[in-house]
This record gives sequence, C-alpha cells and structure tokens, in this order.
Amino acid sequence: MQPEDSRYDRGLGRMRAIFGPKIESALQGLAATSPDLVRCLVEFPFGDVYSRPGLDLKTREMLTVAALTVLGYPQAELKDHIRGALNVGCTPDEISEIILQMAVYAGFPAALEAVKSATSVFGEKQ
Amino acid sequence: MQPEDSRYDRGLGRMRAIFGPKIESALQGLAATSPDLVRCLVEFPFGDVYSRPGLDLKTREMLTVAALTVLGYPQAELKDHIRGALNVGCTPDEISEIILQMAVYAGFPAALEAVKSATSVFGEKQ
Amino acid sequence: MQPEDSRYDRGLGRMRAIFGPKIESALQGLAATSPDLVRCLVEFPFGDVYSRPGLDLKTREMLTVAALTVLGYPQAELKDHIRGALNVGCTPDEISEIILQMAVYAGFPAALEAVKSATSVFGEKQ
Amino acid sequence: MQPEDSRYDRGLGRMRAIFGPKIESALQGLAATSPDLVRCLVEFPFGDVYSRPGLDLKTREMLTVAALTVLGYPQAELKDHIRGALNVGCTPDEISEIILQMAVYAGFPAALEAVKSATSVFGEKQ
Amino acid sequence: MQPEDSRYDRGLGRMRAIFGPKIESALQGLAATSPDLVRCLVEFPFGDVYSRPGLDLKTREMLTVAALTVLGYPQAELKDHIRGALNVGCTPDEISEIILQMAVYAGFPAALEAVKSATSVFGEKQ
Amino acid sequence: MQPEDSRYDRGLGRMRAIFGPKIESALQGLAATSPDLVRCLVEFPFGDVYSRPGLDLKTREMLTVAALTVLGYPQAELKDHIRGALNVGCTPDEISEIILQMAVYAGFPAALEAVKSATSVFGEKQ
Repeated sequence: MQPEDSRYDRGLGRMRAIFGPKIESALQGLAATSPDLVRCLVEFPFGDVYSRPGLDLKTREMLTVAALTVLGYPQAELKDHIRGALNVGCTPDEISEIILQMAVYAGFPAALEAVKSATSVFGEKQ
Repeated sequence: MQPEDSRYDRGLGRMRAIFGPKIESALQGLAATSPDLVRCLVEFPFGDVYSRPGLDLKTREMLTVAALTVLGYPQAELKDHIRGALNVGCTPDEISEIILQMAVYAGFPAALEAVKSATSVFGEKQ
Repeated sequence: MQPEDSRYDRGLGRMRAIFGPKIESALQGLAATSPDLVRCLVEFPFGDVYSRPGLDLKTREMLTVAALTVLGYPQAELKDHIRGALNVGCTPDEISEIILQMAVYAGFPAALEAVKSATSVFGEKQ
Repeated sequence: MQPEDSRYDRGLGRMRAIFGPKIESALQGLAATSPDLVRCLVEFPFGDVYSRPGLDLKTREMLTVAALTVLGYPQAELKDHIRGALNVGCTPDEISEIILQMAVYAGFPAALEAVKSATSVFGEKQ
Repeated sequence: MQPEDSRYDRGLGRMRAIFGPKIESALQGLAATSPDLVRCLVEFPFGDVYSRPGLDLKTREMLTVAALTVLGYPQAELKDHIRGALNVGCTPDEISEIILQMAVYAGFPAALEAVKSATSVFGEKQ
Repeated sequence: MQPEDSRYDRGLGRMRAIFGPKIESALQGLAATSPDLVRCLVEFPFGDVYSRPGLDLKTREMLTVAALTVLGYPQAELKDHIRGALNVGCTPDEISEIILQMAVYAGFPAALEAVKSATSVFGEKQ
C-alpha cells in the first residue's frame, strides 16, 4: 500500500532527473489550465512507469525518442525528451541513430521532422 | 429527395450555430484555393452528419474534441472545435476532462498538445 | 493522500460497472504475461480517470468509442467498449451515430472497420 | 441544384464500375447495422468525390491504394480497393510499385502489411 | 552489382528533377546534424525507389501528396512535394483534387491541413 | 564505394542474426509478389541501417519493439521483432517493460494489443 503523495513526489523527482529543475515552472504553466492532467502526468508516467527498475533511465529515454519520432506530431514533447535523453547520458550521435532507424519503421517524413527538432536541441547545447 | 442547395444551407446554418458568424469569411478564404472542398465540408459533415437528430450538438462537439485530440496533428481544427464546444454549452472543465481521458487512449503527448490548444482558446474567452 | 489499494479497488469497481463481472477473468489472462500492465490499467484509466466526477459514465464510454474508432487498429478494445457503452446506457443507434460522425474526422475506412465491430457486438446482444 | 437521389444513383454507379456488381449485396450487409453510414458512403465518396472529372478512375484508385497502405489498419478496405484498382486498369506491377513507394513515406511495416493483402488479392485473380 | 556512388548520384539527380537545384543546399543543412540520414534519403527513396521505371514521376508525386496528406503531421514535407508535383507536371487543380479525395480516406482535418499548405505553395507560384 | 551485392549479403546476414535461418523462406514467400520490396527490405533496413555501428543489436530491437507498439496495426511485424529481440538478448521482462512504457506515449490500446502479441510469442518459447 502506497500513499498518493509518494507517487507524486517520486514522479517529480524522476522528472527533475530527466528534464532538470526548470520542469517545475513548466508544470505550473500547464496546471493553470488542467491541474489534474499535470497530477496524472507526474504520477503515472514518471511516478509509476519511469520509476520502475526494469529498464535504466537512458534506455527509457531512447525508447521515448523512438516513440515520439514515430508519432510525428508531438515535436514539442520530442524536443523535451531529446533534451532529457542528453541529460541522462545519450550522445547526439545515438539520438541521430535512433531517428535514422525510425525512417525504416515510420517513414522518412517522421525522421525528417525529428531531425529538425534534434538540430534545434543540439544547437542549444553548444 | 432533397435538393443540393438545402444541404449547403442546412450545413452553413449548423456551422454558424457552432462556430459563430465569422465562419463565412473563414470559408471564403479556403474557397479561394479549393471551392469544392469547402462545398463538401459544408454539405457532408455539417449538412448531412451534424444535422442528424441522433445526438445533440453539445455531445457531437465533445466527440469531435476527443477525435481531434487523438489525431494529434490538427491543432488548428482542434482549437476551432474547442471554441465550438464552448459555444454550444460545454464548460472549460468538461473540455479539460475529455482531454485528460484521451491520455488513456492516445497517450500523454496527445493530451499535452491538446491542453496547450485549450489553454490558448480559454485565454481568448476571458 | 490516498493509498494505492484504494486506487486498484476503485478502478476494478469501475471496470465491473462498465464491462460486467467477466472482466476479472480477462484481467487474470493478461496478468499472466504482464501483471504490472494490468495493475496500471486498473489503477490509472479506471481508478484515476474514469472515477472522476467531471463526466458521467455514459459520456465517457461514448468518447472512448469515438477515440477507438479514430485509432482504427484496436478493434478488440473497440468491441469491449461498445459492449461497455451498451451496459452503461448507450443505445445501438447512438453508437452507430458516433461511428458515422467519425467518418468525418478519421475517414470512411475508420468508420467501416468500426461498424463491422459494432455489428458483431450488436449480434451478441440479440 | 441536384436532388439527393441522383447523388445516390451516381455513387452506386461509380461503385459498380470499381467494385463490380457484388457491391450491392456487400452494402446490404452493412446497411443492416447502419443504413445511414451506407447512404453516406455511397453519396459522399462515390456520388460526390469519385464522380468528379478532375482525375480519371485509375488514378483515383491508385491514390486510394496509397492512402490505405499508409493508414495500415484497414486491410479489408485495402483489399477491396486493390480489386477495384485491377478492375479499372491497374496492373499488379503498378500496385506493387505503389506499395513499395509507400515504404518510403509510411515505413516498411505499412508496405509489408499491404503486400500481404496484395498477394491475397492477386491470388484470387489467377 | 551497382556501386554505392551511383545510387547517390542517381538519387540526387532525381531530387534535382523534382525539387529543383535548391535541394542541394537544403540537404547540406540537414547533413550538419545527420549526414547519414541525408545519405539514406538520397539513396533509398530517390536513388532506389523514384528511379524505378514502373511509375512515371508525375504519378509518383501525386501518390506522395496523397500519402503526406493522410499522415497529416509532415506539412513541411507536404509543401516540398506539392512544389515537386507542380515541377513535374501536376496542375494546382489536380493537387486540390487529390486533397479532396483524401478527405474520404483520412477525414476532413487531414484535407484542411493540406489545403492550407497547398494555398501557401500556390501563392509562391503566382 | 560499395557494391550492391554486399548490401544485400550484409542485410541478409543481419536478418539471420535477428530472425534465425527461417527468414530466407519467409522472404521467398514475399518475393513471389514483390521481389523488389524484398530486395529493398534486405538492403535498406538491414543492409544499411541495422549494420551501422552506432547502436548494438539488442538496443535496436528494443527500439523497434517500441516503434511497432506505437504504430499498433503491424502486429505480425511486432511478433517477428519480439522473437528477434529475444534472439539477440532481450528478456521477456524487458519486452513487457517496453510495452508498459508505450502505454504512456501511445495509450493503453496500443499496449494491450502489444501484450497480446507478446503473450503469443512468449508461449512459443516455453
């Protein structure tokens, strides 16, 4: 039996580890419209799933970069997770390699949209 | 037997009820490139489908907000239908609730993109 | 602060209300491969989201039928939720009307796949 | 001004030209669940769109085979339109070529699913 | 047996025929982040697929406009291929007709997004 | 400069390493309809992409399992790659963990379809 507050706290801790301390003000912005979506976002993906021991954080971020490249439309979320992937130990070359592989599974438009997002994020890092 | 003009007129009436009187200038803008797409848009979705008695207009707009949240890429259309949903009696809380539920079926990136569109529309309303 | 067990129990209660008592053996089947996915499924969509007061259960099931029709590939889940929608008060005509409306937003192939699933479920009911 | 009955008749004529005379019993099967979806299907895609002069029928069927390959999930509709494409003058080689091109835009899984459907339809033809 | 350089050269020639001579600087921009994705893009879609004899270049571009309209999210790629389609002999009316037909298969949001991209490209041409 | 035959041979070697020796008869089946799609499949995804040094084979298969779970419709390809992932060193628990994570990004229907495919593959292995 696990109290809700620990899910939220654990999720927020995981989000800070991936996205850095700025994540809290980003969440506050979203919470103005939908505080419950923010709570669910912190608790379920990060408090429940990303906190599980079965895969390390770098592998999880690589899988998420692949998933968002395949979906294609959520480029804002893809940029956040490319930043996150770099924060937890991925290299830019590994991210480019994931995007290239997704050209096979979701087509070249998906890869081209993603590489533009990656370029924009890699530019911030320099 | 029903003449075509009545489909167009009925559809345009339904669009005015949902989107307000500005819809006609928006349609004129689209018609410059593709008058036939505009005619089909007025006649089929609004003249044929939205004019049917089986579901009330508020329910239809809620279903459409769900559908566009799931699709993810058509944020411009989603904003139009969030405005439309508010016009026909949805509350902002109901719209946020629909978007949250879609996180279950289409994932959090879909919900996050939609909540950003909702935030932008709710801001216009204030 | 809310203990985890209450999320699970609340979610299972909600699933029973929608899908009927057979849901527990269906969940046991899935749990043989992935007990944690089953736990998350009970807790997050049903314990957290479907238990919220903002939308009644019939409206939630109508939105989910719309969402699954748009996604197109999850016909097994669509059949489950068409059964669920009937259980919580939708009529077959309302379900057919939702599917028809989705032809506008996701195209006719989505609607045709969904109407075949609906036909199969309506047949069980007779 | 064009009466509704002519839309239906024109659409049914177009469907017969593409799918052959068996289409009417297929439509009757669907109409048992959703007569209005069948009416909309005959009138809008085939009565309105496919009856327009801007593209010949063979080109339209090639575009539809491309679209259904990209969507991926509607393999039943894809098989129907591969049959339709053959009926209006496409060769099996042209269909295979369309599917191969779609590997570029929607990825290899889309192309592999489509080529299995094409194989099944080409087998019927021999 | 065919050396790799001829795939690249053949692909680049095909891209110049479709997109015009500016394509080379566009590719150089992408290559700064992911030179290997650029190489694969030139070699596989254009060197291998678009260079095949089974479909003429105008038909290929029409199919690609259909595919990108269906996918919905890659509007930048859609604009490039609308320009390409015009370059290899499509008329604006044919492109509008393809987009209208895709409303049937992928829904009106897909068609509306595409017609906005087409409007923007047709405006450049005047 | 690299001759084409080496791309094919290298790709086939990679496919054997992932899918086992039965892959050659599977490819022969597909080649009866579309020999060129088979050639492209061997050469581009496996000869070009999967043969690159930037990611190890186990990581590539994990990314592909994620991608196919997100796409949802290609369950046959997903089963092949779950088998492939097991062959190159993934455990069933890691595959279940990937699928659970994809519930966050593509929704629960995607995860439920994938876990049914995984259950079927894990059953073969016992």
